[in-house]
Amino acid sequence: MTSTASARPLRVGVVGLGWMGQVHARAYTRVGQHYLDTPLRPELVAVADTATDERVARAVAAYGFTDVHADWHELLERDDIDVVSITGPNFIHRDVAVAAAQAGLHLWLEKPAGRDAEETAEIAEAVAAAGVQSTVGFNYRNAPAVELARALVAEGRLGRVEQVRITMLADYAAHPEGALTWRYQNRWSGSGVLGDLVSHGVDLGRYVVGEVESLVCDTATFIPERPALSGAAFAHTARGGGPLAPVENEDYAGALLAFAGGARGTLESSRVAVGEQCTYGIEVHGDRGALAWDFRRMGELRVCLDQDYTDAAWATRFVAPGDGELGAFQPGSGIAMSYDDLKVVEAHRLVRSIAEGVPQGATITDALQAARLVDAMATSARDRRWVDVDAPRVSP
Amino acid sequence: MTSTASARPLRVGVVGLGWMGQVHARAYTRVGQHYLDTPLRPELVAVADTATDERVARAVAAYGFTDVHADWHELLERDDIDVVSITGPNFIHRDVAVAAAQAGLHLWLEKPAGRDAEETAEIAEAVAAAGVQSTVGFNYRNAPAVELARALVAEGRLGRVEQVRITMLADYAAHPEGALTWRYQNRWSGSGVLGDLVSHGVDLGRYVVGEVESLVCDTATFIPERPALSGAAFAHTARGGGPLAPVENEDYAGALLAFAGGARGTLESSRVAVGEQCTYGIEVHGDRGALAWDFRRMGELRVCLDQDYTDAAWATRFVAPGDGELGAFQPGSGIAMSYDDLKVVEAHRLVRSIAEGVPQGATITDALQAARLVDAMATSARDRRWVDVDAPRVSP
Amino acid sequence: MTSTASARPLRVGVVGLGWMGQVHARAYTRVGQHYLDTPLRPELVAVADTATDERVARAVAAYGFTDVHADWHELLERDDIDVVSITGPNFIHRDVAVAAAQAGLHLWLEKPAGRDAEETAEIAEAVAAAGVQSTVGFNYRNAPAVELARALVAEGRLGRVEQVRITMLADYAAHPEGALTWRYQNRWSGSGVLGDLVSHGVDLGRYVVGEVESLVCDTATFIPERPALSGAAFAHTARGGGPLAPVENEDYAGALLAFAGGARGTLESSRVAVGEQCTYGIEVHGDRGALAWDFRRMGELRVCLDQDYTDAAWATRFVAPGDGELGAFQPGSGIAMSYDDLKVVEAHRLVRSIAEGVPQGATITDALQAARLVDAMATSARDRRWVDVDAPRVSP
Amino acid sequence: MTSTASARPLRVGVVGLGWMGQVHARAYTRVGQHYLDTPLRPELVAVADTATDERVARAVAAYGFTDVHADWHELLERDDIDVVSITGPNFIHRDVAVAAAQAGLHLWLEKPAGRDAEETAEIAEAVAAAGVQSTVGFNYRNAPAVELARALVAEGRLGRVEQVRITMLADYAAHPEGALTWRYQNRWSGSGVLGDLVSHGVDLGRYVVGEVESLVCDTATFIPERPALSGAAFAHTARGGGPLAPVENEDYAGALLAFAGGARGTLESSRVAVGEQCTYGIEVHGDRGALAWDFRRMGELRVCLDQDYTDAAWATRFVAPGDGELGAFQPGSGIAMSYDDLKVVEAHRLVRSIAEGVPQGATITDALQAARLVDAMATSARDRRWVDVDAPRVSP
Repeated sequence: MTSTASARPLRVGVVGLGWMGQVHARAYTRVGQHYLDTPLRPELVAVADTATDERVARAVAAYGFTDVHADWHELLERDDIDVVSITGPNFIHRDVAVAAAQAGLHLWLEKPAGRDAEETAEIAEAVAAAGVQSTVGFNYRNAPAVELARALVAEGRLGRVEQVRITMLADYAAHPEGALTWRYQNRWSGSGVLGDLVSHGVDLGRYVVGEVESLVCDTATFIPERPALSGAAFAHTARGGGPLAPVENEDYAGALLAFAGGARGTLESSRVAVGEQCTYGIEVHGDRGALAWDFRRMGELRVCLDQDYTDAAWATRFVAPGDGELGAFQPGSGIAMSYDDLKVVEAHRLVRSIAEGVPQGATITDALQAARLVDAMATSARDRRWVDVDAPRVSP
Repeated sequence: MTSTASARPLRVGVVGLGWMGQVHARAYTRVGQHYLDTPLRPELVAVADTATDERVARAVAAYGFTDVHADWHELLERDDIDVVSITGPNFIHRDVAVAAAQAGLHLWLEKPAGRDAEETAEIAEAVAAAGVQSTVGFNYRNAPAVELARALVAEGRLGRVEQVRITMLADYAAHPEGALTWRYQNRWSGSGVLGDLVSHGVDLGRYVVGEVESLVCDTATFIPERPALSGAAFAHTARGGGPLAPVENEDYAGALLAFAGGARGTLESSRVAVGEQCTYGIEVHGDRGALAWDFRRMGELRVCLDQDYTDAAWATRFVAPGDGELGAFQPGSGIAMSYDDLKVVEAHRLVRSIAEGVPQGATITDALQAARLVDAMATSARDRRWVDVDAPRVSP
Repeated sequence: MTSTASARPLRVGVVGLGWMGQVHARAYTRVGQHYLDTPLRPELVAVADTATDERVARAVAAYGFTDVHADWHELLERDDIDVVSITGPNFIHRDVAVAAAQAGLHLWLEKPAGRDAEETAEIAEAVAAAGVQSTVGFNYRNAPAVELARALVAEGRLGRVEQVRITMLADYAAHPEGALTWRYQNRWSGSGVLGDLVSHGVDLGRYVVGEVESLVCDTATFIPERPALSGAAFAHTARGGGPLAPVENEDYAGALLAFAGGARGTLESSRVAVGEQCTYGIEVHGDRGALAWDFRRMGELRVCLDQDYTDAAWATRFVAPGDGELGAFQPGSGIAMSYDDLKVVEAHRLVRSIAEGVPQGATITDALQAARLVDAMATSARDRRWVDVDAPRVSP
Repeated sequence: MTSTASARPLRVGVVGLGWMGQVHARAYTRVGQHYLDTPLRPELVAVADTATDERVARAVAAYGFTDVHADWHELLERDDIDVVSITGPNFIHRDVAVAAAQAGLHLWLEKPAGRDAEETAEIAEAVAAAGVQSTVGFNYRNAPAVELARALVAEGRLGRVEQVRITMLADYAAHPEGALTWRYQNRWSGSGVLGDLVSHGVDLGRYVVGEVESLVCDTATFIPERPALSGAAFAHTARGGGPLAPVENEDYAGALLAFAGGARGTLESSRVAVGEQCTYGIEVHGDRGALAWDFRRMGELRVCLDQDYTDAAWATRFVAPGDGELGAFQPGSGIAMSYDDLKVVEAHRLVRSIAEGVPQGATITDALQAARLVDAMATSARDRRWVDVDAPRVSP
């Protein structure tokens, strides 16, 4: 019997201990509580964070890290780290990830992995060359309802898939006085809503339905100027107070998708959608049934199954133990898992990947394909034409 | 004081007394009950219908028509008809409508007006030349919640419109054994779901938001063959029993829309969507608010208004007297109007158009613009490219 | 072949041509349009209404009545009337209904039939003595989704019924400045929300589930004084401007119900419920399934059927032709019927009752049982104890 | 600056390491991660559990407890424990809790605290005598949406509360072959759904609205016999295989409630409600607004506020940081907290109670009042009469 207690330690470094870095830190500590047979037991060792305020120091102490470095290079040079979480802003992902892989460290990398497909490919190559594991934070895959959706499609319960709708709407940038943070400047972010939300959306589509072969996309920047940031806030929603400066990337993207299996899809994403806090979801119609999922009601899957072709009714199914990983968190249906729990699932997949030497869940390969799709959307929007996208070497 | 009783008669002929013809017949008789100040009082005079079964004879008697003709030319030659309803299948619309206009008759024309923009333009020209009124059956406009939606947008309550989603999903053709009726053959229908449902969708978009300037569209035929019809059924949902023959037109259409005001939109439509009986709706996001309407819950408008840019909540508002035409039908909110009631509204607009000599509601001009948009979608799907669409001479 | 055209006429008088009287008038004229085989063809003959304003005169003309009487006795004395609709305020129901029955006229009577069970029994006795038909306006029975609910329960699809929730919430009296109309004075109304809404609720419960054997009830008057009416408005929602005077009857009732079959129920009703326009519904749980209906989404029945005992999911089923009377109104599911359509169903049941000499739908017997239940609730609330209720001679 | 790292340790014992015991264990370890300023840092020391299987041993190891005792007396005799979690079945609560309090240990006690009000009073007295803190597991209070609901009521945003609906429906006992565990035998459980679910419901009502002064209740046992348990399962949902034996307590309870402030309420609870997994909620109507909460959509509060008395619309508000404790868990609205997170909130309140010597959140006083209400319901159902309930010494 393996158990949390007897499991070998997995020594963890975290680059960036903001909100997401702390989500990772908590997830590491909880793997063994939800997966009693975890093959490795994460131990929080060190943090790299450029922030100099008390906030980081308190978090470091609270989570029990031993050391904190201002420079992430120092973190990677330690000899007591097995895996590194990369959770800082987009513009450091490639550099840290490549260096970490080259240092033989496994990766838990937030999305978008790189600022574009080229950067992401560099990471993928470094990962492949080093033979390390690379978990990527496409966390929506980990929701039991999404796992159930994927299973229903895979089992043919919907018949042949015909129609897909992917929705990724948020309001975090809806305020016109929201500051011009790094997110709105391409040299830092790579893109706007495409990298931030659409990358999640295309991963959801790939995971539930399959590969996208071609697409046409339109983008728009509805708030073309924002006030420069006065002060040092990195938050999504900080208000700027400085002079207006141009927003360099898109607030909105709409796309038509053609899936490899013949299904057609639409994708809509916005970061300025008033009324939409986290309206992230997917709806799939097949020739025998349909399903729909919305992150805001994460534990529910709407399904239309096992009926005649016409006049079929939709049911709302609460996930139950046995659907995805729910059973590791709750004993019955209707009892909520949290967003953070999705990250515990992700951490567990990372841990198993490392222990078994076999990728589990979303990896840099998935991040690369998402980045290719996002790049294709940018190209399509710029050139106003359909763009084909090659299939990845490995399917999701 | 005018009143129903003292109003001048408006003598009515109906071409095609199937379901929709009977909807028209009932609507004519109810105008004066809901609009006590109706300027004209419709009288049902004559019907033209090629069906020879007892069904038509009984309906003719039940509605109190005086005469029935097998040939619609005879109906148009009568000298005791002021207005003609054209409700038969698509392939007779142009011929009847042009002849009726040339005979000086006002028109109540079901959509799609013609099989394509060219046919629709012919009708529009005949209407203009004759100076008759031409009400077109874009009935979703008449829902009080849609009128309210249009008013909210027009008053700027949503701010500048950014994002629009139009959905027209049905399952009437979802059964693979559904017979190959005229709807699936272009010489009779002109197109598939584009003419049948998308025409409604683009009218809804135009009415609530405004003109579409350019678009890119993708179409698919998911059920490429259907059994030939054995027997004479015209019904949407009849089962065929004959040999399989090819479906000539699209089951599905997806499109990206660029509105004149800068808003971007998606449109999805299918006639084979399992689980979707009449999922017809529109969702609009502006920079200050949002709204959404779904025909299946016709009396509800979901709104997100009068809040901050972020964390804004949606409310479900039941229409109340004062919203659109609800007050002509029900005394309070939460009490359902019917689909047929929308046609009473339409009939009233027709009657007022005729009495006042000024178009009211949707006319052949709107049908023509819808047909141009539908044609542009077909072109875009065929050529896989963006297509521009000229604005109509008159806005909706 | 019978048909609307060849059907014998049924000559109609209407007492009270306010909103509900006009609903009746319209329903009579539409019976033959939706039921082509109607055995009798209603003809609107005469009205009795005490209102002297132009409003009634216009409605009389619009609906095509021949005569209007200020005194309802004159109407009943006519020899050219077969059936009389009684739609005025509660305090005239008993007198008009008894006199009409004694005059050999069939009745279409709005609820509550009498101001209390005693008055209602008087009507029932007069009806029985005269051998006339007596349709009562428990219109919610006529919704196809309610018919479907009743059928599902009757067929045992829910198993043995265990738990019932009846909700009748409205806001028509929520405004504290709403005038003290006759509704708030027991000599005119008999009771408050008990007679007005709870009577509907108990009929719904009886129709779907079965008889109630005993109950305990609590009532409350949340707005104990209202301004006297200045002017002659009868409307629910008119604002008073006069001095405050006491409200004599209950704004709210809550009850526990024990059904004959062993099921237990709750009932909640209020006329002052902010946010609830017409929140009228029933929810039923059996040992194998459950269902729920809400008038505001009249065409939907929520069902939980054909699954295991645990983790069962609810589906939303749109009624389709074949469910109740939908097929007489719409050709497919998802297309709305109206409140008025429920009254056409009711009129058709009245017409068939008269033609066949056999009661159809809700009759004075149902009204009497509803009145007994309402009286029992008043007694229970006054005495703060459980009260038994005898079963009616005939079940719903 | 205090922080998790510098906080003094709080040494924890857990009695019963089943599902709920593990929930507590996890919650203790997470307090310092979500509340960086926690005044005490829980350390898991020892467990008492009678189960002898490997399951407990693995959990003990996984959570890092030092010792495990078969007999809870041994646990209480340790001198290295500050607080004890009591999470075993109902029949041990009183004995363990009284002994623990007498030993000077603080308590975290699952509900129902005792099998009845008498047992609960014994615990309350022991707690008072010892001067220890006593957190009780009324976890629904801790949901941010419930905190928001309470705040809205307290601030008068709903006006004077008129009407309350409390719903506690589950299906865990819906299967007729579900085994006759201790839950169905009063000597072990004290009561059926009253203690298990209604106790939560009345706490929710007290917390959001206020004290209940009198009530009338009806109960029913819909599945009167169940198969005896073959084997040692304690689980809610285990299937029995033995001979049928009588169920001693109620499956269902319905009640009318009279609140101290004049509001009236209904309460419905069932453990055999097919289709209802965790349908736990409260709906409140006041004379100016209304709100509704359902545990299955824990992060949503439906509100009807800031409108006119009539035609007011409901909005669905996702809780945001600033509502209750959401900000300690998630950075934005629409991102799910879990059931377990509610227990972290509870653990934090326990920790603060102990550190500050001032009760926080639900305590044994609340458990006692809930027990009195539950006992009053049992009395009312038995005697079929209204029962008055004294107010507690301290309000929730």
